[in-house]
Amino acid sequence: MTAYRTLDPEGVKHFLAARRDLAERLGGEAQDWTVREVSDGNLNLVFLVFGPSGTLCVKQSLPHVRVDPDWKMPLDRTAFEAAWLRRIEPLAPGLTPAFLDFDPEQFVLTMECLNGFVTLREALSKGADPIAPSRILGGFVARSAFLTSYFAQPFEAVAPDLAFFSGNTTLTRITVDLVLTDPYREHPRNHWLPALDADVAAMRADPRIIARIGALQERFLTTPQALLHGDLHSGSIMISDRDVRVIDGEFSLYGPIGFDCGLYLAHLAVAHAATNDVARKEALTAAIRTFWRTFCSDFLYLWKTQANGADLYTPTTFSNAPHELDTLRAHFISGVFHDAAGFAAAEIVRRLIGYAQTSDFDHIQDEQSKADRQRVALSFACDLLRDAPADIDAFTERLRQDTDLPSTTSPETT
Amino acid sequence: MTAYRTLDPEGVKHFLAARRDLAERLGGEAQDWTVREVSDGNLNLVFLVFGPSGTLCVKQSLPHVRVDPDWKMPLDRTAFEAAWLRRIEPLAPGLTPAFLDFDPEQFVLTMECLNGFVTLREALSKGADPIAPSRILGGFVARSAFLTSYFAQPFEAVAPDLAFFSGNTTLTRITVDLVLTDPYREHPRNHWLPALDADVAAMRADPRIIARIGALQERFLTTPQALLHGDLHSGSIMISDRDVRVIDGEFSLYGPIGFDCGLYLAHLAVAHAATNDVARKEALTAAIRTFWRTFCSDFLYLWKTQANGADLYTPTTFSNAPHELDTLRAHFISGVFHDAAGFAAAEIVRRLIGYAQTSDFDHIQDEQSKADRQRVALSFACDLLRDAPADIDAFTERLRQDTDLPSTTSPETT
Repeated sequence: MTAYRTLDPEGVKHFLAARRDLAERLGGEAQDWTVREVSDGNLNLVFLVFGPSGTLCVKQSLPHVRVDPDWKMPLDRTAFEAAWLRRIEPLAPGLTPAFLDFDPEQFVLTMECLNGFVTLREALSKGADPIAPSRILGGFVARSAFLTSYFAQPFEAVAPDLAFFSGNTTLTRITVDLVLTDPYREHPRNHWLPALDADVAAMRADPRIIARIGALQERFLTTPQALLHGDLHSGSIMISDRDVRVIDGEFSLYGPIGFDCGLYLAHLAVAHAATNDVARKEALTAAIRTFWRTFCSDFLYLWKTQANGADLYTPTTFSNAPHELDTLRAHFISGVFHDAAGFAAAEIVRRLIGYAQTSDFDHIQDEQSKADRQRVALSFACDLLRDAPADIDAFTERLRQDTDLPSTTSPETT
Repeated sequence: MTAYRTLDPEGVKHFLAARRDLAERLGGEAQDWTVREVSDGNLNLVFLVFGPSGTLCVKQSLPHVRVDPDWKMPLDRTAFEAAWLRRIEPLAPGLTPAFLDFDPEQFVLTMECLNGFVTLREALSKGADPIAPSRILGGFVARSAFLTSYFAQPFEAVAPDLAFFSGNTTLTRITVDLVLTDPYREHPRNHWLPALDADVAAMRADPRIIARIGALQERFLTTPQALLHGDLHSGSIMISDRDVRVIDGEFSLYGPIGFDCGLYLAHLAVAHAATNDVARKEALTAAIRTFWRTFCSDFLYLWKTQANGADLYTPTTFSNAPHELDTLRAHFISGVFHDAAGFAAAEIVRRLIGYAQTSDFDHIQDEQSKADRQRVALSFACDLLRDAPADIDAFTERLRQDTDLPSTTSPETT
């Protein structure tokens, strides 16, 4: 047992040199390798390593929040990310980094290096097409959710993963607090532009919004439908000219499938609210529809073709009720959408007024304009929480209406 | 590590003599002890042991179904029963046998001896008052469910139990198959009186019933609201002149609270359908209402007084929405009732046509009369599955109507 030590670039070389398989991928010797630290999120150290014949990505848990060393945090989250990656990679081939190694003493996960990729958030901010990756993501969520659910296998095959991932309490605590609780109460971690004071106060005073948040808290903790990514925002997705990879599965847990869907939709909606470019808004709206429709059709296709051995909704039991089987499946998908709209709203709210905010509005120089755009995003989220949209068309129509600022109030730089 | 050996009365003495704490409870020496085998259920050996100064109950898993040695079964179920007992005993003091010891190598659970108790089923069949124990059971389910739920504590406190009990796959498989699947398909374990052939065929051909069973399967596996007993029928409850004890927690798992409620209601409803004594039917109807009302009021009382530290529906978040908090709580209780009515129906069905049937109809000598009474019970269950009752009054009113046989068809011995 080697005591945990935080890695630096030299430490990364030392770590890899001691592991033949990983060293051979890089080629040459440690002195031939280049290590670049690219830590970017809130929680971990990340290094890209370049050798004569290959590359690697090395990720290590820190014993505290990276940007706030006083916020202590257990190290085991990398173990959950490694387990998520090993579970999901074979179910969605080519859509995650390839898993290479996990060291449970140093909490170091080594995987495929995504050099040449950028986050989807960065790509979108630079005008990249949002539709093609949204189609891929809809398929990814459908596959990873369906194939880890009770609909795809006997419950005995789900039980060990349910047990294991229920241990991911540290990061689940972050979701429960930062996404589903803090924005709706006074808390020092919250912050927002002063111009939004009245909007935040009105949101917190709205009983329908609070009731919906309560219901979402309950759904999140007591609906283990499938193994979720748990943090599927546009910074957890890397894209290149040809490929998409979902990264950062450290928040993984069994939960409601609509949570992953909702987080992805939220970030497209935030990008939509953050721009006043009409063509861009239309592309983002189309991406929202594409994501959801792909998710639905892929999920239903898997359900009809890969449900062998499952205990739920088995075709043999339903041999006298094929129409009802279709109805139950449609009802299930409707429930996922209902959850997704709620969790999307909660994610938008927390990215506007909570601890970890989004950079989507950073391009707006004028604070008044920025506040105006954030207000319409907040208004859209509150609208979703007050009165759930029936379907994806109602969702995008409300997004269009709620975020349609008169152009005179938006002299910004997009 | 001592290899597992099935106990016989001499083996029980040997086992206890080697455990000082247990031997001291009995007093004297092994030759002074009397061992009586009382194995009665389908799955285990049970011995009552009497010594000069005390008594014990010793329960051991068998490696097969007791009444069907060809049906092999892992031994670990006693470990789950022991864990359930240790978790629930302090939450519902005096309502379970006292836990004394668990031997994980021999799968032997030693607990308080309930000599002088009889099962609630036996007591009811002899005309015992059903109302007083139903009030106690309503309180028991409220306490055991609420205090193991996310409403009573931070989710981190639930996670280890959720993980542990999700390993109870052997007995959960029995519930999934025998209660929620087999009765709705051809299976050699099913059996029923020939006079019910048409009723069973009609039930299986009813798309609404099949759809509801599908939804109940999903609720059972994907709604871990609380730690359930998992098999709360009237044979899992022991009563004496003064006391009630809930036994046999080997089916325990995290699941929907309405499952425990529904099983208890099912067995009162079956007792109701099995008699043609009007006063007895009224007493059983009153017991059904008493159980449910006590469950509701006790659960809500605990929610208002013992929710400190919980993540769901926290009063601080709802400080601006106290009315909505009450509404959400009432909505939750309604959901438990909806589940309970469905699971009650599934339990009635399986006790009439499935593998492990109930003895409630055994007193009826005439097969036609027996079939008539079983038919009305089945009819009531199908009615609940086709069209969910809104509340407990609708439930009991349907029970009254559906099971109200003309007395001319019931020349039986009650």
